[in-house]
Amino acid sequence: MENTLFTINNVWMMMCTALVFLMHLGFSLLEIGLTRQKNTINILFKNVFILSVGVVLYALVGFNLMYPGSFIYGILPDHFFSLFGLTVPENGLTSEYNVGYTYWTDFLFQGMFAATAATIVSGAVAERVKLGSFMIFTIFYVGLVYPITGSWKWGGGWLNDLGFYDFAGSTLVHSVGGWAAFIAVWLLGARIGKFNKDGSVGAIPGHSIPLATAGVLILWLGWFGFNGGSVLSADPGKTSLVLVTTCLAAASGGLSALLVSLFRNKQYDLSMFLNGLLGGLVGITAGADMMSVTDSIVIGIIAGILIVLGVGFVDKLKLDDPVGAIPVHLICGIWGTLAVGIFGEMASLEQLGKQAIGVVAIAAFCITFAFIILIILKKTVGIRVSEEEEQEGLDIHEHGMDAYPDFRLNQH
Amino acid sequence: MENTLFTINNVWMMMCTALVFLMHLGFSLLEIGLTRQKNTINILFKNVFILSVGVVLYALVGFNLMYPGSFIYGILPDHFFSLFGLTVPENGLTSEYNVGYTYWTDFLFQGMFAATAATIVSGAVAERVKLGSFMIFTIFYVGLVYPITGSWKWGGGWLNDLGFYDFAGSTLVHSVGGWAAFIAVWLLGARIGKFNKDGSVGAIPGHSIPLATAGVLILWLGWFGFNGGSVLSADPGKTSLVLVTTCLAAASGGLSALLVSLFRNKQYDLSMFLNGLLGGLVGITAGADMMSVTDSIVIGIIAGILIVLGVGFVDKLKLDDPVGAIPVHLICGIWGTLAVGIFGEMASLEQLGKQAIGVVAIAAFCITFAFIILIILKKTVGIRVSEEEEQEGLDIHEHGMDAYPDFRLNQH
Amino acid sequence: MENTLFTINNVWMMMCTALVFLMHLGFSLLEIGLTRQKNTINILFKNVFILSVGVVLYALVGFNLMYPGSFIYGILPDHFFSLFGLTVPENGLTSEYNVGYTYWTDFLFQGMFAATAATIVSGAVAERVKLGSFMIFTIFYVGLVYPITGSWKWGGGWLNDLGFYDFAGSTLVHSVGGWAAFIAVWLLGARIGKFNKDGSVGAIPGHSIPLATAGVLILWLGWFGFNGGSVLSADPGKTSLVLVTTCLAAASGGLSALLVSLFRNKQYDLSMFLNGLLGGLVGITAGADMMSVTDSIVIGIIAGILIVLGVGFVDKLKLDDPVGAIPVHLICGIWGTLAVGIFGEMASLEQLGKQAIGVVAIAAFCITFAFIILIILKKTVGIRVSEEEEQEGLDIHEHGMDAYPDFRLNQH
Repeated sequence: MENTLFTINNVWMMMCTALVFLMHLGFSLLEIGLTRQKNTINILFKNVFILSVGVVLYALVGFNLMYPGSFIYGILPDHFFSLFGLTVPENGLTSEYNVGYTYWTDFLFQGMFAATAATIVSGAVAERVKLGSFMIFTIFYVGLVYPITGSWKWGGGWLNDLGFYDFAGSTLVHSVGGWAAFIAVWLLGARIGKFNKDGSVGAIPGHSIPLATAGVLILWLGWFGFNGGSVLSADPGKTSLVLVTTCLAAASGGLSALLVSLFRNKQYDLSMFLNGLLGGLVGITAGADMMSVTDSIVIGIIAGILIVLGVGFVDKLKLDDPVGAIPVHLICGIWGTLAVGIFGEMASLEQLGKQAIGVVAIAAFCITFAFIILIILKKTVGIRVSEEEEQEGLDIHEHGMDAYPDFRLNQH
Repeated sequence: MENTLFTINNVWMMMCTALVFLMHLGFSLLEIGLTRQKNTINILFKNVFILSVGVVLYALVGFNLMYPGSFIYGILPDHFFSLFGLTVPENGLTSEYNVGYTYWTDFLFQGMFAATAATIVSGAVAERVKLGSFMIFTIFYVGLVYPITGSWKWGGGWLNDLGFYDFAGSTLVHSVGGWAAFIAVWLLGARIGKFNKDGSVGAIPGHSIPLATAGVLILWLGWFGFNGGSVLSADPGKTSLVLVTTCLAAASGGLSALLVSLFRNKQYDLSMFLNGLLGGLVGITAGADMMSVTDSIVIGIIAGILIVLGVGFVDKLKLDDPVGAIPVHLICGIWGTLAVGIFGEMASLEQLGKQAIGVVAIAAFCITFAFIILIILKKTVGIRVSEEEEQEGLDIHEHGMDAYPDFRLNQH
Repeated sequence: MENTLFTINNVWMMMCTALVFLMHLGFSLLEIGLTRQKNTINILFKNVFILSVGVVLYALVGFNLMYPGSFIYGILPDHFFSLFGLTVPENGLTSEYNVGYTYWTDFLFQGMFAATAATIVSGAVAERVKLGSFMIFTIFYVGLVYPITGSWKWGGGWLNDLGFYDFAGSTLVHSVGGWAAFIAVWLLGARIGKFNKDGSVGAIPGHSIPLATAGVLILWLGWFGFNGGSVLSADPGKTSLVLVTTCLAAASGGLSALLVSLFRNKQYDLSMFLNGLLGGLVGITAGADMMSVTDSIVIGIIAGILIVLGVGFVDKLKLDDPVGAIPVHLICGIWGTLAVGIFGEMASLEQLGKQAIGVVAIAAFCITFAFIILIILKKTVGIRVSEEEEQEGLDIHEHGMDAYPDFRLNQH
């Protein structure tokens, strides 16, 4: 009987893994939709690369690094100085290993998460990052930074001991990606034409809002697995609650961003609506397993407001974030993490303090490492393409092809 | 052990919920694909709005309204005059609540259905409906009409007592949406250029058949969950039978519409093929749990024929239904409901009568309410955009943006 | 309790069926993305047709043909001379029928596989095949050839007795489709403009790399079900291992094709990357249940190399394969089948011999039958469209419509 329950838990986790996998399609479509046509191949390439190299690296290094059992000085996983592949522990295929799933499911589910963190950066740096440098950055970020910060909480490290809570990764995944996006965008500088000398902000519209919208709906679907799988079992009450809080936060995040932007700009702004949905999803992620219906709706509403304000704020800072990765993943990631101390079962000033410590600690680590990797790349091979390449598009320069080479207008 | 079976039932229902969620992507792609580019943002906006507001409204009102326990005068759910949020009943997370799933799963699965009914209307009124009015209509239709008619059967109301059968909603979902589409299309009038003064019918082609086709395949996939989940448990025999009847009806509906249109027009008509598939899916929905292989194929074949005839019939009535929502959801919805009295385990003249009563009763209610809501909107704020806006496109007028703002032709 | 395990196995198999269904969307998007816009409707039509007719034919003929129980002369299933529909055997809905799933699930899962084999051909013959002839070919290939060769192994036939192993169909599905693609491409001849008189090879670029990329990611997702479901139960250790080997082979196949093509052409080639992913997926398919992490990575790497070499080789042979179906499905299908004798639990020279026998036997049968069907079609109704139709596009000639009839460039 235990075996049967184990089987069903494992099935649920595998289906959730498949849904998180699908998020990579969602990110790809969202990012190409919101950027210019001339950089489409480049963005698709980056996303497929991140997914592929992410899975392989997580097998070679990340998984063992992240779930280590013990730590050096409480911070660095003790396996840090050795590389390894995957080896199934003796009980790795039974419920003794983990009541929810096998060793293999564990690896694949977590591996999909690792790749997500790097994908967040991809959108922010789009349209001007040098491909080779970004690929190197990805390798370090997915292979080292994500597993180390992840181990602090999910690997049983010091943040876990402290009582920091992050159910499915508002901080451990989204802010980790968000901070790197922030640093990268700052070091890269804005795209030509974004911030003009007269102080005006140029709009650089994307090339396919249908694909962007499809991407957001696919991401929402993927979140069924991202949050639903983070229960780490198929426990009926918990998994189904998580799906409800996730969907309600998404919906109310979208509606709130829509209303705020409608009030400000007198237009039904689809982009804000979509980013509000994503903000609600990121916002609920840290506490999706413990919020009430009302809590989720309120968390979503605030996330939606933060999106509208955040997009303006990022512009104010003269940071050029083509897809809104910083408001969505960083700002709402922080918001969601803090919300665990404000709403739901764990709400208390003490918990809020612990949440803040987690946010700050991971911010410090990610900022530092992202800065170090990127500044080294900047000073050596460079991180930005030439002005000519930026103007003509990365597709033709880095990949020698167009995204729609045979596209024609209606001829009949 | 009971707990284990409950867990697996709940997992199945959650996966089916995810698949029904995905239908909203399917509808979005289908609708934008079959309409003109200048109204793409508008349609995407409507679909995302329906999904978002649908989930929130169903939490606030719809769910409790639809599954009430008792009725006023046998028709109006007795909770009608109070609004409520979701409250988990004492046994809501156990198999005592429901052998198939938890309270949360129940809510989310049904909530996805509610949003579907309104989405059906969205396609039919595309390209000329005033956005604000449609949003108001959606709120009433998803928040009130759908839950009330739904309660008559699935909430244990009078149609259920009568012996009316509608497994997954040929009537309760598809006709409910279809009748509103019918009334709305009639009150709105045709798009400029559709029906000319000389009596000719203008073809107004869509802007992306690939997206429309992708939408249909995604809808078919979603129907695995729509029908498969309507078993309300993971019962192996029933769920797998339902998937088989669903797929066979879809396939034979498509093939039959293809052959009929090939015979009539000497061309391999992809649009008819796709609408035939959808017609087959809607047609099998009322009785998917009780049809044999042969039954499903025959139901699909007739649905496919009805699609071809229905498209012509709607044109004859001078109704302008850009995506074929009336043939697919209304005509095949009625057909599928009646088919329960003709084919399968329940086939009998008596049952056919009960099915007809259900069709007529729900038609009367939906027609009345859709008419009242829409006529009030028409007489006050208006339901149709200005001629200028229709000509220039709703995207630029209501949303201030194009769907493909940076799209260019091959430059290299 | 047995019943509970049966239920969960069946749920897993139904979800895998849904994922394999989704592969048809993946193939559709990949194929239209890599071909010219003027043939888009035609390709979509073919794919939807294959899926529809495949499911119906598999119900009428294929399923019973493939799982026959006994054989005539050990080769031809003994039901060959009778046609039948589906009839649930007495124990077909219980675990006595099959520990993993019901009769209905069995049918639908296998039916999705059958349709896949024909879809592989569709891409290879794109842009010049006569639609009617292709439809007839599909009917024979899905209805007869696939079930017969499938019965040799999965139906318990002579290849199974021999000890040939093909877990999820590197040979039984992918090579079966690949051989037909090979023969069809050879009999059809190249598209106008592909191989020039001066010996140069013309590049005929596709019309939407974003859709092609989305197609590949959807195919990868579908492979979770294709391979994961081939365990034929939800056994936790086996299913989760299969997902891991599948993902690692895909990722390393993509990365290896990327690196080899980068080394050769000094460009980051997205098409090669994508085909490398698919090659890795096809390559692992025959042995996904028995490979280690290292084995899967090595199998993927070799598949990636074979893709780059294979694309060149096919060009050398003056075979015009617009989507790379031959390298992906035929070459990597053979590679994956042989790999079972080289890597993993069954590795031995003896096994390698058995694998080779299977490859050759199925090649002989498929080549013969594909040739016979196609040569008869060629000599009678013809298999290739007129030069005029090829130049103007199959969409307008066979379907009377454009794929993007209302598409316009940014107007505001």
